[in-house]
Amino acid sequence: MSLSISQTYLPVFEIGLNALSGVLDKASAFAASKKVDESVLVGWRLAPDMLALARQVQIASDMAKNGAARLAGVEPRRFEDTETTIQQLKERIEKTLAFVKTVDTTAIDASADREITFPLGPTNKGQMRGVDYLNHFVLPNFYFHLTASYAILRHCGVELGKRDFLGAIPMKMT
Amino acid sequence: MSLSISQTYLPVFEIGLNALSGVLDKASAFAASKKVDESVLVGWRLAPDMLALARQVQIASDMAKNGAARLAGVEPRRFEDTETTIQQLKERIEKTLAFVKTVDTTAIDASADREITFPLGPTNKGQMRGVDYLNHFVLPNFYFHLTASYAILRHCGVELGKRDFLGAIPMKMT
Repeated sequence: MSLSISQTYLPVFEIGLNALSGVLDKASAFAASKKVDESVLVGWRLAPDMLALARQVQIASDMAKNGAARLAGVEPRRFEDTETTIQQLKERIEKTLAFVKTVDTTAIDASADREITFPLGPTNKGQMRGVDYLNHFVLPNFYFHLTASYAILRHCGVELGKRDFLGAIPMKMT
Repeated sequence: MSLSISQTYLPVFEIGLNALSGVLDKASAFAASKKVDESVLVGWRLAPDMLALARQVQIASDMAKNGAARLAGVEPRRFEDTETTIQQLKERIEKTLAFVKTVDTTAIDASADREITFPLGPTNKGQMRGVDYLNHFVLPNFYFHLTASYAILRHCGVELGKRDFLGAIPMKMT
């Protein structure tokens, strides 16, 4: 059996982003129970020169929406990166998932050998074969920012486990 | 074009683990320059109830070797999890990459629809279709522990950037 790109990866984005939304719910409940302003969590960093939680969530969102769009050969929808609350970050995730669902899966599935050009920072551009762009750029970055979000919140004391990170994966347990 | 599982994922493990080995080199150089005992870094955690660096590296290794072996239907090689130094963790990565290269790629490629059963903690077992096991269990966990290793070291002050995390990906930059 061979794998279609869209059937394989669109569920990865959906499960991962929904899991992140659930992680943010637990962060919100933690803030309420500790009487901590949510903005403290939204602005938390693991090091002074690492990105804060809000930016980690925004980039995880960007990886899903930009990855799907560039594979399909369409311009990704732009979001303004203005989220400052947990609720707004959860809405960003919803908008991302809604956008990903609009991307043409036939175009995505035809992208494996196509050369993809994408911005790398403000001035550079990266170029990769579609399947390499997905497996060696989009997915590692997507999981990096999901994990960084999780790790920031664990570091702050939010009670999260690996199941919160993995989300609703299609697994039977015995 | 369709994707073969082995051609797609074995390079993901190889690039990711080699990148982790490079990250550990930078950790070692940081410890030397700061006159910090390397065991401080090897035992560092982002939270008291999170795993220390050594265990994060061991589990990243396990995800690659166990994932490849279980997809191929063979028993994974067992490692003893006794590493206490950065050099030993780098050797663990080398042994992992050597083992992954011995796994039969034809058997991996035939695993997409096969039911995979794998241990989940000391008593439970998980069951997933091969392609789901790879995309929704092995890869998220693999990247989780790579990112956690990176985040622990960033938190300790080691100078690392995203390029260190991504490793030698097949990308042209202009």
